[in-house]
Amino acid sequence: MEELRPTQRTRLKRLPKRGSYERETIDSILDEALVCHVGFAYWDQPYVIPTLHVRDGDRLYVHGSAASRMLNTAASELPVCVTVTLIDGLVLARSAFHHSVNYRSVVILGNAARVDDREAKLGVLRALVEKIAPGRWAHTRTPTDKELAATMVLQLPIEEASAKVRTGHAMDDEDDYALLHWAGIIPLRLAAGAPIIDPRMPSGATTPEHVLARAESFTMKSGHR
Amino acid sequence: MEELRPTQRTRLKRLPKRGSYERETIDSILDEALVCHVGFAYWDQPYVIPTLHVRDGDRLYVHGSAASRMLNTAASELPVCVTVTLIDGLVLARSAFHHSVNYRSVVILGNAARVDDREAKLGVLRALVEKIAPGRWAHTRTPTDKELAATMVLQLPIEEASAKVRTGHAMDDEDDYALLHWAGIIPLRLAAGAPIIDPRMPSGATTPEHVLARAESFTMKSGHR
Repeated sequence: MEELRPTQRTRLKRLPKRGSYERETIDSILDEALVCHVGFAYWDQPYVIPTLHVRDGDRLYVHGSAASRMLNTAASELPVCVTVTLIDGLVLARSAFHHSVNYRSVVILGNAARVDDREAKLGVLRALVEKIAPGRWAHTRTPTDKELAATMVLQLPIEEASAKVRTGHAMDDEDDYALLHWAGIIPLRLAAGAPIIDPRMPSGATTPEHVLARAESFTMKSGHR
Repeated sequence: MEELRPTQRTRLKRLPKRGSYERETIDSILDEALVCHVGFAYWDQPYVIPTLHVRDGDRLYVHGSAASRMLNTAASELPVCVTVTLIDGLVLARSAFHHSVNYRSVVILGNAARVDDREAKLGVLRALVEKIAPGRWAHTRTPTDKELAATMVLQLPIEEASAKVRTGHAMDDEDDYALLHWAGIIPLRLAAGAPIIDPRMPSGATTPEHVLARAESFTMKSGHR
């Protein structure tokens, strides 16, 4: 299994047993999460902006308006940090101190670069739409040149990255196991409701299979760790 | 209704109609979100770290190990950015370009400060445990002095902050409404499963009301916007 080399900046100093540098772990978290948080500094002030992302092989892609301050700053060769977090449950301990949350997160450090090649850009937009719902691209009007020009795509190599995963029940102090306070997990996951049709669709329109399957995919995920 | 004054740094330049400086909107997003993303810069490298947070009045609090690099850096009078994001749905448009996500997010800029007063710190830990499950504090072993010393609490004033909210269906180009591609929303929300009891609980132990109510609270939230 491919494993990234931890750097001084990604090596986990606290609770290292929760950490992982395995690409398989990192990739599965990046692929499940819909939204990432992009961090960049602008004149000493850090900013953290949520945005859609998609992974293709060894690269993470984000996109947005070509007028976006976030993307323009992040594209200017400055170091960025992209963080993705999935919440899997609330962890209730006997002690207040050991209450926690089960989660899976990934932190990627690096320098982002603009994707300018037309075909490459189109490929990223396609991957983003397919991430919203697999099979979706074939059911959409493809981007025009004007829309492509209005969109900025950034790529970030998945090289300096680490995952952190907390699973399972609380780790109470040994003495506290004698207490009668209830301990356990409330499992959490992102769940989908039934698709809601756009009121401007022609009456009698039915919801296609790829949309129903996407809603179903959230139910399938156990998330119960 | 109280409204924050937008600064040059929080004024929304793009799609300003999605923005809000109303404390009621900002507070409801902060209170619903379990996890925030804290951004800080360390020798020009931005870092974005997920962590639990709780709001009390005009302040946002985060906590962690007193040994945490993130908290120590953030506490050292440097500017931070705390961002909170809730995902409400996938927005499918007729055009690939107008695919989107319904979300509610808050960005807070400012300087964090350590909370050192013992009672104030205890109050924040209590609020954090009560956020995990209302009524929980009374069912836990309260923190010892040693545990309090091992915990760092940071506060950030909610002064320079803005919310951004996207709701509703896709906004396709007028010409595209004639297309037959399906458009609509797949609503998403954080959902809870049935509480899982810690296997080290005495056999025959039952799950108390405050835990069941907390699991139930996720089902109650509509999230369908």
